[in-house]
Amino acid sequence: MFFASDNWAGASEPIMQALAQHNQGYSPAYGEDALTAHITQTFRDIFETDCDVWMVGSGTAANALALSCASEPGGAVFCHKDAHIRVDECGAPEFLSSGARMWGLDGRHGKLTPETIQQGFEEIPQGVVHHGMANAISLSQASEAGTAYSIAEIERISELAKQRDLALHMDGARFANALVSLDCSPAQMTWQAGVDMLSFGATKNGAWAAEAVVFFNRHLGRNFEYRRKRAGHLFSKMRFVAAQFDGYFKDDHWLDNARHANAMADKLVKGIETSPVAQLAWESQSNEVFVSLPHELAKRLEQAGAAFHEWPSNILARQDRPQAGHSLYRLVCSYRTREEDVQNFLRYLA
Amino acid sequence: MFFASDNWAGASEPIMQALAQHNQGYSPAYGEDALTAHITQTFRDIFETDCDVWMVGSGTAANALALSCASEPGGAVFCHKDAHIRVDECGAPEFLSSGARMWGLDGRHGKLTPETIQQGFEEIPQGVVHHGMANAISLSQASEAGTAYSIAEIERISELAKQRDLALHMDGARFANALVSLDCSPAQMTWQAGVDMLSFGATKNGAWAAEAVVFFNRHLGRNFEYRRKRAGHLFSKMRFVAAQFDGYFKDDHWLDNARHANAMADKLVKGIETSPVAQLAWESQSNEVFVSLPHELAKRLEQAGAAFHEWPSNILARQDRPQAGHSLYRLVCSYRTREEDVQNFLRYLA
Amino acid sequence: MFFASDNWAGASEPIMQALAQHNQGYSPAYGEDALTAHITQTFRDIFETDCDVWMVGSGTAANALALSCASEPGGAVFCHKDAHIRVDECGAPEFLSSGARMWGLDGRHGKLTPETIQQGFEEIPQGVVHHGMANAISLSQASEAGTAYSIAEIERISELAKQRDLALHMDGARFANALVSLDCSPAQMTWQAGVDMLSFGATKNGAWAAEAVVFFNRHLGRNFEYRRKRAGHLFSKMRFVAAQFDGYFKDDHWLDNARHANAMADKLVKGIETSPVAQLAWESQSNEVFVSLPHELAKRLEQAGAAFHEWPSNILARQDRPQAGHSLYRLVCSYRTREEDVQNFLRYLA
Amino acid sequence: MFFASDNWAGASEPIMQALAQHNQGYSPAYGEDALTAHITQTFRDIFETDCDVWMVGSGTAANALALSCASEPGGAVFCHKDAHIRVDECGAPEFLSSGARMWGLDGRHGKLTPETIQQGFEEIPQGVVHHGMANAISLSQASEAGTAYSIAEIERISELAKQRDLALHMDGARFANALVSLDCSPAQMTWQAGVDMLSFGATKNGAWAAEAVVFFNRHLGRNFEYRRKRAGHLFSKMRFVAAQFDGYFKDDHWLDNARHANAMADKLVKGIETSPVAQLAWESQSNEVFVSLPHELAKRLEQAGAAFHEWPSNILARQDRPQAGHSLYRLVCSYRTREEDVQNFLRYLA
Repeated sequence: MFFASDNWAGASEPIMQALAQHNQGYSPAYGEDALTAHITQTFRDIFETDCDVWMVGSGTAANALALSCASEPGGAVFCHKDAHIRVDECGAPEFLSSGARMWGLDGRHGKLTPETIQQGFEEIPQGVVHHGMANAISLSQASEAGTAYSIAEIERISELAKQRDLALHMDGARFANALVSLDCSPAQMTWQAGVDMLSFGATKNGAWAAEAVVFFNRHLGRNFEYRRKRAGHLFSKMRFVAAQFDGYFKDDHWLDNARHANAMADKLVKGIETSPVAQLAWESQSNEVFVSLPHELAKRLEQAGAAFHEWPSNILARQDRPQAGHSLYRLVCSYRTREEDVQNFLRYLA
Repeated sequence: MFFASDNWAGASEPIMQALAQHNQGYSPAYGEDALTAHITQTFRDIFETDCDVWMVGSGTAANALALSCASEPGGAVFCHKDAHIRVDECGAPEFLSSGARMWGLDGRHGKLTPETIQQGFEEIPQGVVHHGMANAISLSQASEAGTAYSIAEIERISELAKQRDLALHMDGARFANALVSLDCSPAQMTWQAGVDMLSFGATKNGAWAAEAVVFFNRHLGRNFEYRRKRAGHLFSKMRFVAAQFDGYFKDDHWLDNARHANAMADKLVKGIETSPVAQLAWESQSNEVFVSLPHELAKRLEQAGAAFHEWPSNILARQDRPQAGHSLYRLVCSYRTREEDVQNFLRYLA
Repeated sequence: MFFASDNWAGASEPIMQALAQHNQGYSPAYGEDALTAHITQTFRDIFETDCDVWMVGSGTAANALALSCASEPGGAVFCHKDAHIRVDECGAPEFLSSGARMWGLDGRHGKLTPETIQQGFEEIPQGVVHHGMANAISLSQASEAGTAYSIAEIERISELAKQRDLALHMDGARFANALVSLDCSPAQMTWQAGVDMLSFGATKNGAWAAEAVVFFNRHLGRNFEYRRKRAGHLFSKMRFVAAQFDGYFKDDHWLDNARHANAMADKLVKGIETSPVAQLAWESQSNEVFVSLPHELAKRLEQAGAAFHEWPSNILARQDRPQAGHSLYRLVCSYRTREEDVQNFLRYLA
Repeated sequence: MFFASDNWAGASEPIMQALAQHNQGYSPAYGEDALTAHITQTFRDIFETDCDVWMVGSGTAANALALSCASEPGGAVFCHKDAHIRVDECGAPEFLSSGARMWGLDGRHGKLTPETIQQGFEEIPQGVVHHGMANAISLSQASEAGTAYSIAEIERISELAKQRDLALHMDGARFANALVSLDCSPAQMTWQAGVDMLSFGATKNGAWAAEAVVFFNRHLGRNFEYRRKRAGHLFSKMRFVAAQFDGYFKDDHWLDNARHANAMADKLVKGIETSPVAQLAWESQSNEVFVSLPHELAKRLEQAGAAFHEWPSNILARQDRPQAGHSLYRLVCSYRTREEDVQNFLRYLA
């Protein structure tokens, strides 16, 4: 019953096989190998556009380096107040951008709204040197709360970004989970809706350490290669990242993994909805489920071997917080989650 | 005939096996797993001391983060003018330390001497705010030129460092190659000789992406964990680095790899010494060999499929530079280098 | 009728005289002159303790450099969401600290409360690398809203800071105005109440460009001299800053200036309280007055030559915002404000 | 006999008068005042072009902020190995540019040559991510050694800069001294010879704290305003800098000051040339004179009240170093140097 994080599973079999396959022979170092070129082309095929693609080893690196590309002196990035880039990356976006501010905005269930973005625009107006300048909006798709922006929502935010000449960044640590949830194409969920740059995550969905920054707006990423090296994120045996992506994309393995994780989350949701003691905190649109449980029950589950995290309820509006004696918990499914563990977990909630 | 770099080979078999073995099951993310703890203890056993150990994925990250730990405002690091940290890391040490200067000093064949360090002391005297302050000396063991410091040499430099209260850092991207060349213990080559912190490399010697920063002076590394995360170098599935180290250390695999690479380099040296056309540029004490070759011959070798790099001869003192019609070339052997390739290469030199 | 800012006046006469007086003769550069040493001692006398004192030329430099001294990798500074360091310094504290986050907290009328600080403690708990680490609390005395913390309030916040081992910083851009408002000693308002470091401002109160960072906790400022130089804030003719302080402190000129500015603000308050159209937004405890005025009236005042700024009402809790047709305005008095201008202004409000 | 530095004198009379004059009345803060606009126009008149002009308070700030404008990730600035930006600014250019490397090159008497620049080009070739990228060449005019580049020399270096698409920066801390020495126009010595940006110093030549960054290539400085504020270098009472420039430029006061200082240096040179014991180290083309003196004589001069600094002779090529028993000394004249002090000094050398 491992629902603590999609990071607790190792790498999936096809990815391990790809690693073994591409381990043969010699190959130029530092990303100048044929496999890296091939994977770059694969990204272009998948996204149906001539994007630039740079692979790195962690989601924090992908986000922080991407945002640094958009940041100018005194810069700020509008993001949700609970966004990973603001609260979970130890200041990496601020550090790698030499001081850009992650400007937290409100929004229910992890999602920015046009209204809260407008509020941000008032807080950092244009052309006032004292306030610095806003340079980007960053969305998490899926969000930290397991919800996903609809394409119309992304388009609306993109319009706002264009009005203020801001880059639109998507943190896609759980890109695949949102994609299969929306049932649309990668192009539709990104550049066709106005996204300029994407942190494309594979690690949480079955890889060891494989992330990519995808620039649909290629000008933004024009010196990314130098940023990556300067931050220590260019691997010498770069093909080991490319190899993971090879396994990830082959035969739609990535979509299968995401569909499985989401399906397991759906089963959790269904079980919670019929539970007399648990309450679904809000709708899930990915592989994350947030649930309000009595403390006693949570303790019993842990004793039974379930792994999952209590979640700070201050991410909720006051009126949405759990009732007395309950707390908020996060349950995350992964490509490896077994249905029997889900059923076992739900048995405690019945 | 692959002598371009020890980065061109993939991962060795025992390391691939360890990855597969530790891929089983769930495991806490972000380095809080049992395997990471086990590997930390292995390092302590190998170095015979209670050091702190932090794993990362690239040598540039290891060096730059380590040096940032010693850097104070206006800081400088004394290093050889050809040191990797100064010329080959795209300013990563400067960036991750928020501006420390890599202060290049002379020295034959890639090695600092007490005299050139003394010269550095004069260039950045103590207590003058305009000049900033020196914070560290960094040695590369083995050096960029394939040479190695003797233990007595390290001790002498350590004495100088102590005089000025400087941290002593060792860039051990090729630590194992130097170690087997000196035929001493890891403890002797590091903390017992006065080294405060070590970038311990495994990637060039058979891993995919596995490096560690080892703090013998634990105070220096007290907030390394935050530095690593802030720079995006904490992997979520951290055990994939630990697993590589597990395969690396098991049954002295790391020492075997290094011995093989050095032995192949020795064979190259022997062949060059008897060659009527090639000249050994200087003694090799690791897996790197520098040789002066006629341009024609170099071209012929490349046409025959040999991969190796011409090396800028400005790293040589003027009197040591290759004669007209010759250039300096670097030949690197790795754990994978085959003796038949060495013999084949030498046939062209005969 | 200049109420736009206390920065619109030039330097006061005693300060100009001190500049002329100390312009005579030669004097060592870069702060190694006798006058700088003398002023340092004057600070120690005024604060009744052996503090360290470093002069700079701008309040932003003072704040940002001071906070950088407390900042560790992944650091955060708790401050009011409207604090100057968070919204008015173009990211200088973030930049000069290499990425520390100014963590905005709520609080009525510009002041942090123990409750909102506690909330911050929950948002950045101790020992979780993902969230980084909190390093300091920063108070503005007087606050951006013209209010002042009582000594008991400072002490209470200091207790909280000690619990979490945070440095307590005071932004004293309007230190003198708060001091004469509280009618206490400089020592009482700072280190005796638990303040570790102070940005001591003179510019808004009659100097040209004279600020000082005062370290009561001297360990925090141990390498400030290098930080100041590294950021370009060490003046070669440093005595021109020291000279301003000489005029500032002589014969309690600084306290006279502040008392005058506060008295003028008091007269504005009195007039507003009896106005049938204007509403005092909240109590003033310094030289700043916030008032709600009908737009029409504000326009008429501007046409009559009054200079003052509309203030974003989003700094107010929703229930405190001005009624329809009104906006919030800030009126600032300085050492140079003339009583007749105050009376003239008030005539429009009657 | 004050020859220690041109920073030891205070401000000249016309500058003090301008400060007093512009102290009257109220004026918008943060550089939005009429005087700042007027001075900007004055710069354009003097340089006969539509440059952008940003005033700051220290030469280190001017240099470091200017260079940060040209710096990209992994950047490097070619400069003389003894350049102020490399050895005397405590790492400010590195810090404010987030890690750009000041890449020291050789050259006799403080001046870069086409040959040494070419050597730098080889050390940091284009398009190799490991080496980072060179972004600028920085010249000091006059140099740290008191010499000046001829216009032809500047043009030649500018050609090299254009070849590699590098910005050409001039550190003009002693701009006026070089200008009157060359007897050319400000336009000729800068943009007409290919200079992109200039640190224009007034402090050493009679101001308190007045420097400006002048962008002939306006694109380079497009967000300078934000850089200045973000580093704490925007003064609230900005007009106090503008006022100094008003006094500086009025009636060619700045040129008079520089001519006087250079003339005093010339007299020193003449005296040294006829001295039986002192040796002129090299030709002076500004207000700085470098001389080799017997230690005994230097000591006697100091006892007689002369202030001047011994200079590290490692700035000299080995063959140029002072003979045994002698050392190298720097003598600096300023607008305030009195002829009788020069004569008195020379009496000891006779």
